Amino acid sequence: MNKTEPRTLPGFMELLPNEQILFNQMKEKIEKTYQKFGFLPLDTPILELSEVLLAKAGGETEKQIYRFEKGDTDISMRFDLTVPLAKYVAKNYGTLSFPFRRYQIGKVYRGERPQKGRFREFYQCDIDVIGDGELDIINDAEMPSIIYNLIKELGFEDFTIRINNRKVLNGLFESIEQKDNATEILRIIDKIDKIGKEKVIEELKKLELKKEQISKIIDFIEIQGSNDEKIEKLKNLAINNEQYKQGVQELSDLVKYVRLFGVPEKNFSIDLTIARGLDYYTGTVYETFLNDYRELGSVCSGGRYENLAENYTDKKLPGVGISIGLTRLFYKLNELNIIKAEKKSVSDILIIPLVEDLTIPIKVATELRESGINTEIYLNDKKLKAKFKYADKLQIPFVIIIGEDEIEQNKIKLKNMQTGEEKEIKISNLKEEINLLLFTT
Amino acid sequence: MNKTEPRTLPGFMELLPNEQILFNQMKEKIEKTYQKFGFLPLDTPILELSEVLLAKAGGETEKQIYRFEKGDTDISMRFDLTVPLAKYVAKNYGTLSFPFRRYQIGKVYRGERPQKGRFREFYQCDIDVIGDGELDIINDAEMPSIIYNLIKELGFEDFTIRINNRKVLNGLFESIEQKDNATEILRIIDKIDKIGKEKVIEELKKLELKKEQISKIIDFIEIQGSNDEKIEKLKNLAINNEQYKQGVQELSDLVKYVRLFGVPEKNFSIDLTIARGLDYYTGTVYETFLNDYRELGSVCSGGRYENLAENYTDKKLPGVGISIGLTRLFYKLNELNIIKAEKKSVSDILIIPLVEDLTIPIKVATELRESGINTEIYLNDKKLKAKFKYADKLQIPFVIIIGEDEIEQNKIKLKNMQTGEEKEIKISNLKEEINLLLFTT
Repeated sequence: MNKTEPRTLPGFMELLPNEQILFNQMKEKIEKTYQKFGFLPLDTPILELSEVLLAKAGGETEKQIYRFEKGDTDISMRFDLTVPLAKYVAKNYGTLSFPFRRYQIGKVYRGERPQKGRFREFYQCDIDVIGDGELDIINDAEMPSIIYNLIKELGFEDFTIRINNRKVLNGLFESIEQKDNATEILRIIDKIDKIGKEKVIEELKKLELKKEQISKIIDFIEIQGSNDEKIEKLKNLAINNEQYKQGVQELSDLVKYVRLFGVPEKNFSIDLTIARGLDYYTGTVYETFLNDYRELGSVCSGGRYENLAENYTDKKLPGVGISIGLTRLFYKLNELNIIKAEKKSVSDILIIPLVEDLTIPIKVATELRESGINTEIYLNDKKLKAKFKYADKLQIPFVIIIGEDEIEQNKIKLKNMQTGEEKEIKISNLKEEINLLLFTT
Repeated sequence: MNKTEPRTLPGFMELLPNEQILFNQMKEKIEKTYQKFGFLPLDTPILELSEVLLAKAGGETEKQIYRFEKGDTDISMRFDLTVPLAKYVAKNYGTLSFPFRRYQIGKVYRGERPQKGRFREFYQCDIDVIGDGELDIINDAEMPSIIYNLIKELGFEDFTIRINNRKVLNGLFESIEQKDNATEILRIIDKIDKIGKEKVIEELKKLELKKEQISKIIDFIEIQGSNDEKIEKLKNLAINNEQYKQGVQELSDLVKYVRLFGVPEKNFSIDLTIARGLDYYTGTVYETFLNDYRELGSVCSGGRYENLAENYTDKKLPGVGISIGLTRLFYKLNELNIIKAEKKSVSDILIIPLVEDLTIPIKVATELRESGINTEIYLNDKKLKAKFKYADKLQIPFVIIIGEDEIEQNKIKLKNMQTGEEKEIKISNLKEEINLLLFTT
């Protein structure tokens, strides 16, 4: 019979079990953190009507979309979780409670040119708070506190949540009469970390900006100091523009509230160069950097938008949200070998029976499972050495051996696979002793 | 601006938050049970090369597949989790440890004609044990014990795991020289519960079976009694066929081991009419019925197959597995309003601050979250009534009210939303008192 070569599409992550265990722990930590702040779960379809999904899209995004016909239906695979959220909120507006706080963790699809560390199928982990008509700025301040909890939960201490406000930027551009060039200027400013100040000036010149206008922009993005000093300097810039003033006020309120939410000063910072390329952000924007691994780029980003679902409804639905691109983040952290995981295996214990009659091994397994310990019985007939090798390869921390001798004496033998240490335990004391071992080592 | 009607594709489940919470609890219970038995997680791509995914498929399945081209690549969406598993095991054969025990919970796609309770996108929750070359029958016996734990975990007590063996059936057909008609006869037998004995006989006649052959089949599928009696009767049927004898022996061993694994007699039963339409099962087959809700059909099915990945590799990889179609199961249980869920909301507590300064409310929330309690702060400026209505609609069990008076006296007011009962608690005792309340009510 002819064999088909078993292969996976390029750009699609498919992990080995030991990596998958790490990945799932990261995913679970993110989900638990979102739940801890009271966000509701959502799980929208991966397929949507193209007409609905692409009501707004255009440009680069549209080219990357997986789109096809099935029967007479023009279907697309979702490329983010924000558009499906917009559809969902517009569709269920009458039923939902506002502010609507939802999280969604799911796969999205972009047919990008495959390259190392870029994926065509990847997990996004999003939260958003959607208001009905209005949404207080304090919601913008809760986001950094969630990011703070999240990144700490993932095991990192030295990170910075960078904060900016699009109104400040837009107001600046209005004041130098460059409103029409705003998107383009934002795109250029956004790259200052990558390409440096000189290149930014060069690119601004290409937009036919005057020296004076450019120097205003550069003065602005070069503002330095503590968060409070930056706000002070922003207030003192001679920019007489309503939007600018409003933005500075929002930024000032934000900093106050972020402190209130308990985010330490060292973990957040106003960064006036951050614009987030996307043009739907209208207020606060966030990026998050691991300071020891700046090369990863922002690991958690988001911002405030004035109107989530304008393509579907007349209702004004302002929102604020953040997103983690988990697949890429996992890939990079795994490559650097810096994923902090509590568990390296699913099973806490592998039971190796050395007896024909499995009554006692199964009884032991059942008891352990009932007290919340993941327990596998090695059921197949192999040499003892092969069974230990199996436990070793799967990185199962403990092995229980049950032979004739043990059964006669009503006990089991427990082996710590890391230290090699062996211990005999009475079956009647099993749960207590093993719980102690598992949750103190 | 023109609005696009926000709508979801027919046949795609999209739940409201309160339903999604129930769905996720079911999904989590299934996952935890699989982990409890030591199955490793797997997460394969939803898209595969058509050449790889459809190496075997044909007939009905192929017609239902979402298949399309992107650039020069012929791509299909997975229609089950078994074919991706086969690909994965063949691809990673050298790296995996055998027996390879994996679970996968994920969405699969079938472009069926949409009808009530049938979905085009649905979750399958699978486990399989794959052996390298061979796999002991005891692995077949572990599956019912997992099903037993699973269905109990989902809150049902009165259910029956029905067990059969394809070798028994195939041996019977060989013995009446109807081997070539086996698949067709199996398909007919499989329907006896739905269409009744007379219709089965009628359909068998259409296959041009002789009366004698038909009566042998009917005698066989009408065997009644306890599990042991059924095996005794099978042994005593005058069927002189090697495969038949082997099948009966396997069934006999299976029953012995299933008892050993602690599945009560009332929860499993030999059912000789079960064949599982699919022709890749070669030994044990399972179906599971909730006895009070027979109309749901089998809620968990599976079986033994001799060769998982024959389209991809020469290695012989026998396996045994089960699958739950969660989306359909959830839909039906939800319709019947019989989903047992511990939690109806994500948040355990909603904090309603009646003060301008949020220092204390945030401090309280942080403390609660640190002790594992999901806590939301109502951050937006609404009337008190609207805030309580929000807690009510989201079915959050407790509300904490913090006003000037409370802060002055270093306490909070806790309201049980179900009983209406209110209680004042000192902030210093908060964690203890609330843990007590949450985990004893």
